[in-house]
Amino acid sequence: MVRIQFAIDLNYALNFPGADFVFNIHAAQTASQRIVSENLQINPQIVPAIQTEPQTCARFMRLNVTTGPLHVGYRAVLDIDQYIGNPDEIPETPIDRLPLSTLTYIYPSRYCQSDRLATLAMTEFGQLPKGYRRVEAICNWVNRHVAFRSATTSSTTSAVDTIVDRVGVCRDFAHLMIALCRALSIPARFTTGIDYGADPALGPTDFHAYVEVFLDNRWYIFDPSGTAIPMGFVRIGTGRDAADVSYATIFGSVSSPPPLISISAITENGRPWEMPRRRPEAISTDAAVDRLQTSQTNH
Amino acid sequence: MVRIQFAIDLNYALNFPGADFVFNIHAAQTASQRIVSENLQINPQIVPAIQTEPQTCARFMRLNVTTGPLHVGYRAVLDIDQYIGNPDEIPETPIDRLPLSTLTYIYPSRYCQSDRLATLAMTEFGQLPKGYRRVEAICNWVNRHVAFRSATTSSTTSAVDTIVDRVGVCRDFAHLMIALCRALSIPARFTTGIDYGADPALGPTDFHAYVEVFLDNRWYIFDPSGTAIPMGFVRIGTGRDAADVSYATIFGSVSSPPPLISISAITENGRPWEMPRRRPEAISTDAAVDRLQTSQTNH
Amino acid sequence: MVRIQFAIDLNYALNFPGADFVFNIHAAQTASQRIVSENLQINPQIVPAIQTEPQTCARFMRLNVTTGPLHVGYRAVLDIDQYIGNPDEIPETPIDRLPLSTLTYIYPSRYCQSDRLATLAMTEFGQLPKGYRRVEAICNWVNRHVAFRSATTSSTTSAVDTIVDRVGVCRDFAHLMIALCRALSIPARFTTGIDYGADPALGPTDFHAYVEVFLDNRWYIFDPSGTAIPMGFVRIGTGRDAADVSYATIFGSVSSPPPLISISAITENGRPWEMPRRRPEAISTDAAVDRLQTSQTNH
Amino acid sequence: MVRIQFAIDLNYALNFPGADFVFNIHAAQTASQRIVSENLQINPQIVPAIQTEPQTCARFMRLNVTTGPLHVGYRAVLDIDQYIGNPDEIPETPIDRLPLSTLTYIYPSRYCQSDRLATLAMTEFGQLPKGYRRVEAICNWVNRHVAFRSATTSSTTSAVDTIVDRVGVCRDFAHLMIALCRALSIPARFTTGIDYGADPALGPTDFHAYVEVFLDNRWYIFDPSGTAIPMGFVRIGTGRDAADVSYATIFGSVSSPPPLISISAITENGRPWEMPRRRPEAISTDAAVDRLQTSQTNH
Repeated sequence: MVRIQFAIDLNYALNFPGADFVFNIHAAQTASQRIVSENLQINPQIVPAIQTEPQTCARFMRLNVTTGPLHVGYRAVLDIDQYIGNPDEIPETPIDRLPLSTLTYIYPSRYCQSDRLATLAMTEFGQLPKGYRRVEAICNWVNRHVAFRSATTSSTTSAVDTIVDRVGVCRDFAHLMIALCRALSIPARFTTGIDYGADPALGPTDFHAYVEVFLDNRWYIFDPSGTAIPMGFVRIGTGRDAADVSYATIFGSVSSPPPLISISAITENGRPWEMPRRRPEAISTDAAVDRLQTSQTNH
Repeated sequence: MVRIQFAIDLNYALNFPGADFVFNIHAAQTASQRIVSENLQINPQIVPAIQTEPQTCARFMRLNVTTGPLHVGYRAVLDIDQYIGNPDEIPETPIDRLPLSTLTYIYPSRYCQSDRLATLAMTEFGQLPKGYRRVEAICNWVNRHVAFRSATTSSTTSAVDTIVDRVGVCRDFAHLMIALCRALSIPARFTTGIDYGADPALGPTDFHAYVEVFLDNRWYIFDPSGTAIPMGFVRIGTGRDAADVSYATIFGSVSSPPPLISISAITENGRPWEMPRRRPEAISTDAAVDRLQTSQTNH
Repeated sequence: MVRIQFAIDLNYALNFPGADFVFNIHAAQTASQRIVSENLQINPQIVPAIQTEPQTCARFMRLNVTTGPLHVGYRAVLDIDQYIGNPDEIPETPIDRLPLSTLTYIYPSRYCQSDRLATLAMTEFGQLPKGYRRVEAICNWVNRHVAFRSATTSSTTSAVDTIVDRVGVCRDFAHLMIALCRALSIPARFTTGIDYGADPALGPTDFHAYVEVFLDNRWYIFDPSGTAIPMGFVRIGTGRDAADVSYATIFGSVSSPPPLISISAITENGRPWEMPRRRPEAISTDAAVDRLQTSQTNH
Repeated sequence: MVRIQFAIDLNYALNFPGADFVFNIHAAQTASQRIVSENLQINPQIVPAIQTEPQTCARFMRLNVTTGPLHVGYRAVLDIDQYIGNPDEIPETPIDRLPLSTLTYIYPSRYCQSDRLATLAMTEFGQLPKGYRRVEAICNWVNRHVAFRSATTSSTTSAVDTIVDRVGVCRDFAHLMIALCRALSIPARFTTGIDYGADPALGPTDFHAYVEVFLDNRWYIFDPSGTAIPMGFVRIGTGRDAADVSYATIFGSVSSPPPLISISAITENGRPWEMPRRRPEAISTDAAVDRLQTSQTNH
């Protein structure tokens, strides 16, 4: 278990009066990620509407802003307690045993056109033994075959583009890995978060996109971009792909500087948390799916 | 109110032993579509797992088949009681008042890449008064600008293809209309069903794909392909696009003839239901969203 | 007839030793565009290989540079004598009468995928009387349906993207218009040049991309972007699309500021050339095709 | 040297009166492929216009047909004398030494979007020594990573599709190999022909598509689909990609059965030509480029 604190500050100028915002910046409240405290500041003072998506625990906050500028500041302290598994003992879940809530994650989506990658996925990974190690092989393949390069892709870039262009940022790595998993009927989803422990050489702390794959009734974390340390992830939004969990979906015309984000571990008894480092174990966050009614009803 | 009976018969030969099926052929049970009776036959006798998606009421049936051939026969009698509205009095719902469950339907999806159609949608429809009539204008535009031609598209064809190629089948018309609505921040979703009253010149009864658009807290029906009569729709599956509600998603290698489908109205007191005809009113099925907890909670 | 002088200055730093350049910056020498004088400066002093494409009169200059920086300066004085035609009297050329050299311009190319736009082109323009006025209608349609916005597209953007995204720069307008013409079996090609008389509000003089369409055995000029004045065009390169006539194709890794370009008319007898203005006539440059052996040989 | 005879019979019914045809079915006349005799029959008797593209030696025949049905029969006897090279001694040609006529074959085209495959090509083949063996490695890579499956692709399928979908026919293999070569600045072009000696299990003799790559001032033959025997190719058309050298480009609405094609070697002195078999040597047809004026002119 580790106690993490982080802060997000967002600023927007409105180019025209009136704009709607859907923010997804609250930390997800899950069994493995407990909110110790949190604080939200909105300027001007607008009463936000905050709703929680029951299956993914993502929290969406809507603001209708008439005049700007808008400042949103969010601070949270969390206790994170990831489940650690043995990679060699984690099987895939057969299709007829997948919970209903996971089916949506084997179908193609906007940025993960798995329907077009079936032949490629079967050729590259179809002969590997099923289980965590096969998914790890997909993750490594994506990492090796795509070059990380800032500002090379846009918000319309999808897995089909990345398999051609072989270049992108964390979001693009995630979309391609997800598409390849789904092409093999393995549920995979897109997760956004903040990562503690990333290489400072990569620039200031920013939102990160990574992958969760459903194996043996748990969602396991993978980071195909290889730029972050999975042990240090704070989970915010979870969805089919980037279309579902943008940190800010904006309806209107606004201008904004990049988000300001800070994250740190909280010392206990004067002893700092050790910096997260890559470890060989399988890491899972016990996703909301467990709470789902998955008992199968006969007709 | 009308009482409809319909039957679906599906047959599959397995090219290799072992296949998983996810069927979505049960009529949705909603407030406006009540199941009077239904009957399911599966041969060989396999106990199916049937689950209902809580928000869309779509029912998914999974079968794990070891040896074939497989026959699935489904029969149902339904009472359909559509809500009829006045097209001139139905406003759009402002973004900050949309229920959380509808937000997913303003985001782009696999076959409805609304993120790329924003400029086109704003140019063509941005100046029209908001409301049902604007959505109707989108429906008519799609109908006029796309040619209906059988067997011109495939399962990977999307709205972006259709805006270029301008040809397709009902599914393609639906995807394009949905993408244009979402590009204007109007929730729109893909619905599959069986239609009673379609022009027999178009061939035998088949699954149909149409559109539901969220306006004034209801989902209204549109048929951009213009090939069917909305008054005669039996609703089966509802989702973001065709990726969510295929009538049969198959994992394995099978061969099959086209589905056999029949549909008819049931006479009452010896008086047959009048054949559905196109009418100028707005038609809605009071979708499951109404049951959703949409009260907004402040932080 | 007008006498024009223009200058192009290009500067490159080599990020690694060794780079090959293919420049297309020389004014085309055609019957309607005669070179009065020209001057080329290359620093460091490298002997260039300059070749002329016989059909389009485009001149390609290759440089193999071992160490940088590289400066290329080109100055020319030209007499331009455009052919002026009556738009109402210019027919299309039937397919069986097209010169062989023009056939390549009715086929699809990298950025002009006319094979996918056949239905759209027939629907929008198929009913119009054939001739210059129909091509003008295509030009106007592209101008109205696409928004000019700097820096919205990239070097991989094609007509199929533009018909979806409806936004771009002069190159994108040209590609879409060309694709629509070819979809109707009208030869159309991509031309680069410098334009004298463009609106200074659009920024400094830059390379411009426009369209030439083959009608009645001549190539007529069209500017679908609407940002320049066709009466003031100096023609440089002509090809199927931007893939053929980039002003600089570079093999290696270089850095460079934007090109410096100036253009002006030369006063005669102390009387300045009147500023070019939009005129309703059809303008043609009597392209090299006229020199082609087009007599048809029977077998 | 081998003497080959072949015949092509094409039949068309006109759905509406009036159609234009551009055929490319004549054997190319080149230094290594000499026409001994040929015979052309057209029914109804229409005087064709036949023209030869000077650089590729492709012959295009245009017919303007008012009423059908149309039958075109072409028979030819050829002497083929391919150049055989040693794969280990064939270098690539540096960019600044490429003849002007080959430059067009390093640029992207409709079905060979090499501009998007640069990163992939450099990653997979950038480290290999330059020369014939590197091109052979590209050919083998395409053969291994794409599955040959009839009727899986259409006339709009391009290299970018094939790198995603990994399935296709000979034309698709050719387009992908060409795009990868061009991404490495190696000129590559699309060639159509008839192949003698192909595996009869693949069906009746048909038009074949393969690749020519410019190395050491010659065009060498490659067959990435692996379905034919390069020693047995009769060359018909050569171009940037399939857009240039369709065997029949038709303007109008027609119906037609598949082409009827036969090909055989001619016995000499009662001794049949030995069946062509795959051989390890490099094979070249000494393309028309050799006749081009490639002397470099200084300014």
